[in-house]
Amino acid sequence: MRQVWWNGKIIPESEARISIYDSAFMFGDTCFEMTRSFNKEHFKLDEHLERLMKSVKCLRIPMRESYINTLRFVCEEIIYKNKDEFKEDDEYRLMIDVTRGLLPRYEQVGSLGTNVIVSIFPLRWATKGLGKYFDTGIPCFTPSQRQIPAQLLDPKIKHRSRMHFRMALNEGEWPLLLDPDGFISEGPGYNFFIVKEGLVTSTEPRNILRGISREYIYEIYDFVEENIEPYDVYDADEAFITGTPFCMLPVTSLNGIQIGDGKPGIMYGALLDMWSKNVGVDIQKQIQDWDNV
Amino acid sequence: MRQVWWNGKIIPESEARISIYDSAFMFGDTCFEMTRSFNKEHFKLDEHLERLMKSVKCLRIPMRESYINTLRFVCEEIIYKNKDEFKEDDEYRLMIDVTRGLLPRYEQVGSLGTNVIVSIFPLRWATKGLGKYFDTGIPCFTPSQRQIPAQLLDPKIKHRSRMHFRMALNEGEWPLLLDPDGFISEGPGYNFFIVKEGLVTSTEPRNILRGISREYIYEIYDFVEENIEPYDVYDADEAFITGTPFCMLPVTSLNGIQIGDGKPGIMYGALLDMWSKNVGVDIQKQIQDWDNV
Amino acid sequence: MRQVWWNGKIIPESEARISIYDSAFMFGDTCFEMTRSFNKEHFKLDEHLERLMKSVKCLRIPMRESYINTLRFVCEEIIYKNKDEFKEDDEYRLMIDVTRGLLPRYEQVGSLGTNVIVSIFPLRWATKGLGKYFDTGIPCFTPSQRQIPAQLLDPKIKHRSRMHFRMALNEGEWPLLLDPDGFISEGPGYNFFIVKEGLVTSTEPRNILRGISREYIYEIYDFVEENIEPYDVYDADEAFITGTPFCMLPVTSLNGIQIGDGKPGIMYGALLDMWSKNVGVDIQKQIQDWDNV
Amino acid sequence: MRQVWWNGKIIPESEARISIYDSAFMFGDTCFEMTRSFNKEHFKLDEHLERLMKSVKCLRIPMRESYINTLRFVCEEIIYKNKDEFKEDDEYRLMIDVTRGLLPRYEQVGSLGTNVIVSIFPLRWATKGLGKYFDTGIPCFTPSQRQIPAQLLDPKIKHRSRMHFRMALNEGEWPLLLDPDGFISEGPGYNFFIVKEGLVTSTEPRNILRGISREYIYEIYDFVEENIEPYDVYDADEAFITGTPFCMLPVTSLNGIQIGDGKPGIMYGALLDMWSKNVGVDIQKQIQDWDNV
Amino acid sequence: MRQVWWNGKIIPESEARISIYDSAFMFGDTCFEMTRSFNKEHFKLDEHLERLMKSVKCLRIPMRESYINTLRFVCEEIIYKNKDEFKEDDEYRLMIDVTRGLLPRYEQVGSLGTNVIVSIFPLRWATKGLGKYFDTGIPCFTPSQRQIPAQLLDPKIKHRSRMHFRMALNEGEWPLLLDPDGFISEGPGYNFFIVKEGLVTSTEPRNILRGISREYIYEIYDFVEENIEPYDVYDADEAFITGTPFCMLPVTSLNGIQIGDGKPGIMYGALLDMWSKNVGVDIQKQIQDWDNV
Amino acid sequence: MRQVWWNGKIIPESEARISIYDSAFMFGDTCFEMTRSFNKEHFKLDEHLERLMKSVKCLRIPMRESYINTLRFVCEEIIYKNKDEFKEDDEYRLMIDVTRGLLPRYEQVGSLGTNVIVSIFPLRWATKGLGKYFDTGIPCFTPSQRQIPAQLLDPKIKHRSRMHFRMALNEGEWPLLLDPDGFISEGPGYNFFIVKEGLVTSTEPRNILRGISREYIYEIYDFVEENIEPYDVYDADEAFITGTPFCMLPVTSLNGIQIGDGKPGIMYGALLDMWSKNVGVDIQKQIQDWDNV
Repeated sequence: MRQVWWNGKIIPESEARISIYDSAFMFGDTCFEMTRSFNKEHFKLDEHLERLMKSVKCLRIPMRESYINTLRFVCEEIIYKNKDEFKEDDEYRLMIDVTRGLLPRYEQVGSLGTNVIVSIFPLRWATKGLGKYFDTGIPCFTPSQRQIPAQLLDPKIKHRSRMHFRMALNEGEWPLLLDPDGFISEGPGYNFFIVKEGLVTSTEPRNILRGISREYIYEIYDFVEENIEPYDVYDADEAFITGTPFCMLPVTSLNGIQIGDGKPGIMYGALLDMWSKNVGVDIQKQIQDWDNV
Repeated sequence: MRQVWWNGKIIPESEARISIYDSAFMFGDTCFEMTRSFNKEHFKLDEHLERLMKSVKCLRIPMRESYINTLRFVCEEIIYKNKDEFKEDDEYRLMIDVTRGLLPRYEQVGSLGTNVIVSIFPLRWATKGLGKYFDTGIPCFTPSQRQIPAQLLDPKIKHRSRMHFRMALNEGEWPLLLDPDGFISEGPGYNFFIVKEGLVTSTEPRNILRGISREYIYEIYDFVEENIEPYDVYDADEAFITGTPFCMLPVTSLNGIQIGDGKPGIMYGALLDMWSKNVGVDIQKQIQDWDNV
Repeated sequence: MRQVWWNGKIIPESEARISIYDSAFMFGDTCFEMTRSFNKEHFKLDEHLERLMKSVKCLRIPMRESYINTLRFVCEEIIYKNKDEFKEDDEYRLMIDVTRGLLPRYEQVGSLGTNVIVSIFPLRWATKGLGKYFDTGIPCFTPSQRQIPAQLLDPKIKHRSRMHFRMALNEGEWPLLLDPDGFISEGPGYNFFIVKEGLVTSTEPRNILRGISREYIYEIYDFVEENIEPYDVYDADEAFITGTPFCMLPVTSLNGIQIGDGKPGIMYGALLDMWSKNVGVDIQKQIQDWDNV
Repeated sequence: MRQVWWNGKIIPESEARISIYDSAFMFGDTCFEMTRSFNKEHFKLDEHLERLMKSVKCLRIPMRESYINTLRFVCEEIIYKNKDEFKEDDEYRLMIDVTRGLLPRYEQVGSLGTNVIVSIFPLRWATKGLGKYFDTGIPCFTPSQRQIPAQLLDPKIKHRSRMHFRMALNEGEWPLLLDPDGFISEGPGYNFFIVKEGLVTSTEPRNILRGISREYIYEIYDFVEENIEPYDVYDADEAFITGTPFCMLPVTSLNGIQIGDGKPGIMYGALLDMWSKNVGVDIQKQIQDWDNV
Repeated sequence: MRQVWWNGKIIPESEARISIYDSAFMFGDTCFEMTRSFNKEHFKLDEHLERLMKSVKCLRIPMRESYINTLRFVCEEIIYKNKDEFKEDDEYRLMIDVTRGLLPRYEQVGSLGTNVIVSIFPLRWATKGLGKYFDTGIPCFTPSQRQIPAQLLDPKIKHRSRMHFRMALNEGEWPLLLDPDGFISEGPGYNFFIVKEGLVTSTEPRNILRGISREYIYEIYDFVEENIEPYDVYDADEAFITGTPFCMLPVTSLNGIQIGDGKPGIMYGALLDMWSKNVGVDIQKQIQDWDNV
Repeated sequence: MRQVWWNGKIIPESEARISIYDSAFMFGDTCFEMTRSFNKEHFKLDEHLERLMKSVKCLRIPMRESYINTLRFVCEEIIYKNKDEFKEDDEYRLMIDVTRGLLPRYEQVGSLGTNVIVSIFPLRWATKGLGKYFDTGIPCFTPSQRQIPAQLLDPKIKHRSRMHFRMALNEGEWPLLLDPDGFISEGPGYNFFIVKEGLVTSTEPRNILRGISREYIYEIYDFVEENIEPYDVYDADEAFITGTPFCMLPVTSLNGIQIGDGKPGIMYGALLDMWSKNVGVDIQKQIQDWDNV
């Protein structure tokens, strides 16, 4: 069974459970990161940990800044401890959570203080059923549920107070939430891009989580950040989303209106190829193979 | 040790923990209720359970409507099972949580499906340190953090995606959150009232949790619901909050500006007396006694 | 063939066409009314004409106030002229349109000035396919498209600049548009009501067309006007819509969430019965019979 | 008499009329384009037709994408057919309208389906009375009526649901509508620019129709897009508007406050000269001559 | 020459000047009241002084609550001292200002501390030119300038940070400012009422100064408070404004659209008569006589 | 005693007082500038005067454009006249105010017309107590009071209707007001900057006074203008404010959350050094020396 790091202890995954009196459970008061590997090598782990430290700071969860070094070590350790639980063609997915801990009024129930939890599981859990979308593209829609904007609860902090994402998912698969100004923000777990005449544009970084995968696109190709409205999507040549587990998936329609020629775009394909080449993994093939097992 | 009801099993409180892969932990995707007793008799348990069923419905957590009958029974049972854990002068506080359960992609970690959890603990945990405020009144303030309005995530659903409450508490004790229109909504766990020339007014029931204690005021005295602005509070004769653990507490200033004569109000006192009489418990004395032990 | 009144002339329906250079075509710059009969007797014709005059005034379309008398006469006349075009079991549906007329710059194309058009057709055209909903109720949804609020273009004026209604209909059948504040406004051609513990509530009359059918409910039963949010609908015992062609139809779900027991409500049934009795027509039967021919 | 193309037929202009049961009349449910010629040569016809196809797509009016080729041909045809109706010093103005057609419930009245209409008339109709403004400049004002923003009904779609433009015109000539955020959007039929220290700035392209004339300025001079507030206009050296019939007109005051030295600006003059030279027509002279006939 | 009370001293009116380093001058940081007499008897002086004390409290200008007694005395005194400066047919107009005083950093310039100033002048200064409107009614308009809403700077506090009123007046005479939600709020110095079928309605008391004259209407006739939109005004039978100097004036058009029959209304007349009778002054005649001198 | 220029007269500072019937006092209807010298040499006086003329124009205070030349002369004159009132180590601080003058209805009290006032005092009055912040940095906070946005009353006009600044200061020292969209605007008298990885960013210039000191940073270093949210500040390496009296001060925390390492930043120091060098005054030392006298 997989093992989990919990405040310095190694416990079995089935025991990795948080008290119902923890602020995490009570208020959605957790910040977290989820990573992936390529060929079992960490991808952008430092970037994830740095973003986590920012979230911790903004939420004022007590944790010293240098703790990031411990976390680096813990991640290595937890991978090592669990390596036999993974198949040869697996990739790692780490989940790192930090909670404020038991609310003080429940101190009789357990010990107080910040909880740090690092767990791991096969990435294929998170990509299940996605393989086909590399070929067909995703049909997105703008739900009635709007994004909670930064001035009310900042999505740039990767927190777990995200019921609005569940509400959007209740309306259908692959929602793209509009923010209160009517601009596209993000979906639950993915950022959004359009391509028009070779120009790659992503949403303004205001009312979104600034995804590590989104940032990675910068490394392989320049893009600009603009307010994107549904009209811009209908007018685009292509569109895609980015997210850690699947890296990139093409979007071929919004609200039933076809984008470009309704097929995965050329720029999308080129970027995915570049990404695959850079990390030494055929991203699309890997995920499709997992689906076809 | 206290015992908890968990999906039909009785487990020790220390084991009442939720998987880190549960939607509750992942998304703040829980709805819940917390009750109290007077002289160890349930207060408004049915109202709490009915509100819970509404929350469940709005969040589309799978649960049959008739489950409310089970819950009634479970609450009785869990009180009975734990009765020896309570002192003679204790009151019960039940916590009833419903979560969507493990996210399907983590099915290897445990079993899927709705989780229902009923736990219990002494009410005095929740009233600790409040005793003095019956005499001095509470100094409230309007934080920079605004309430998330109903159209983005409805606070009338008693959910646990409430990081914004933590953010408000980070700014200071006793916040009264303004909604995006600048009207007073609520605090984390309490509703708000003002009194002016004998007229009792509470906030419009739009951007708040419609508290059971708030509703109870209706039973003992008529009040009206209006948009309340800070000006109205400065102009009021008195103000108070309601919340399940403490029932009612006077508010004697807002943002450092004195309300009325700066002392607990006459109407407040009369309503608290009536409430105490109705339930056969001197509410103020009980809480102050607990603090003085 | 049906005949149409057009600025004082009687013309065949197929000729009832407006210049492509008319302000009506150019700007959606028309105000209008559509009525119905019961047993071929006018229903609330005066109320419709009075509302039309208000629309004319707000849009500043040049027309003298006393013109309402002419219109009363014209409506009678046009019914009389067309009576042989209607079957015995038909009802009349009048459409009265007022446009600002040809834009002055196109004066060479025709004559300038206000256009008044009164046409008529069988009501069954407008109720086609609705019969079944009296039994099953309507499944409404809140589209991503929001209502244009009164401060931008007042829906209390019955105008024809209503592309946003088409956009909502593009998202699905039976939309209930939220206004920018997240309150339910109306659908394309119908007002909305909920019933809870015997209390009938309709939307605030701000961001809606104040329907004649909606007003008629006042005559047979008291109702209150409140901001209605989706939560209130989920929490209601029943819900219904009103509109001239069908009078009243039950709403049994919103966004897939069942309202009450998911069947047409008791209050709804009682009001429809009263209405039917008052006008001497079994409203439901008539529409269902037309569908079953 | 001028001839109009109507769904493949050529009909006289006086017959170019749309049924009162057409969605165009009923909902303002039309998209359209209006062009001009220079020396009777088309200007940017392709750009107009491409924008039309985008509008068609966003409104989901059924029409195959390749129809643009037909439209190119039809425009040529309709000019040819009407060429004898134009004087030697005339310019052409094409109007191309696409409507969703008769609402299905009125199918007895005519045939269903998309309507495509191409008509033509002398440009001088649209420029009548504008000649003097090339010398004096236009006095603009910000009306109380605000622009309907893209998130409620996208002005980037060139539709005919534009009552709010009529309402603005009811307040006075030459309105510049503020959007709900207080930024200048556009007037009914024109885009807006300011010039400050040689820098040409136009409004952000969000809450406006992205005019073909506006785009043409790009071809002859670089400009930037920014949110423009009244303050920026008062602070500018010069200002102008662009629109197809008149190309460019200077704006010399806003709300009675003089812009720059209150005369048509130098940059304005230079751009108009360049435009005139590029198209081989003295734009100002042509329009002033028409006015002086 | 008229004498002014200034922090306990009596000084000539021409000396009643505030330092350019006073917070009043620097920040518009003053609260104030302006009253009137009928037959040289105070009208509602206590209400004015109580409202002043509320403003002082909300602005946190240091002043003890009991100071209201001093102010009552001072007002009497200042009237007495100046009585010979008034003609027999004059009425008194008191102006009472409270400022925070010299900003501490300018302490070398003068003495610090709250400034209280009571001055007096003939009411006819404030009513000059208004006489004719009793007969013709006022033509109001909704300016582009919006009201600053309570959540940004509360107009219920009678302060002097009111540049937006000047900006509205720059657009024309008799503005009625819309608040950011598009509801009518108030004009610079007057509240607004409509009458429809005998029902008198005033604006919601949220984004307005709650005028003493407005409150007085309550004493002579019941009215309701509702959000009022321009549509409601166009649809009303009559309209009027209230303000201390003129008491009540009829409004006969809004934005050029006639209200009712375009003449001062019956209800208006009745209320003004009642008011005149109650105070023993023919209000209309007095003001018109002053204009006719 | 210091002398003040008042509409062409030289009067003693203690007489520099404005009538309580002036529009300045009545409406906060003043625009103004405040300057500073370095080594008793004017700094950016022309820029201040030009901005003043813009404010005058936007407020429509009657004043001819060429008056700026007079003002230049007056400033020189008033410095000269007062030079003996300043110590050797003093710097000058000019205050230039323009008011609309006595409201016409009070014409008996004095003469009507624009008032222009130029006064002068030692800069050290304005920097008192600030010395220590050069070392410790300023702890800023975001108050509940929001900035009044440009569309309601434009802060780009340097006016004196600024009660909202006083309200923010009532909440605490060093407020940074959020605008209604949740972006940082400015504090009472200072603009805001952040530095991240060498990139200097200031707020968008929309809802702020565009400070002369802020503009000066452009001259010594490039910066970009972006919407800045609290998150961006928490994520920054350093932050600072600019204002005329103190030039630049470091900001080391926001809402109690440390910025960077919590000490004055490197970029801040470098810019201040450059500024000091450019003007030949050790800015920090000068202010600290004044504090230490």
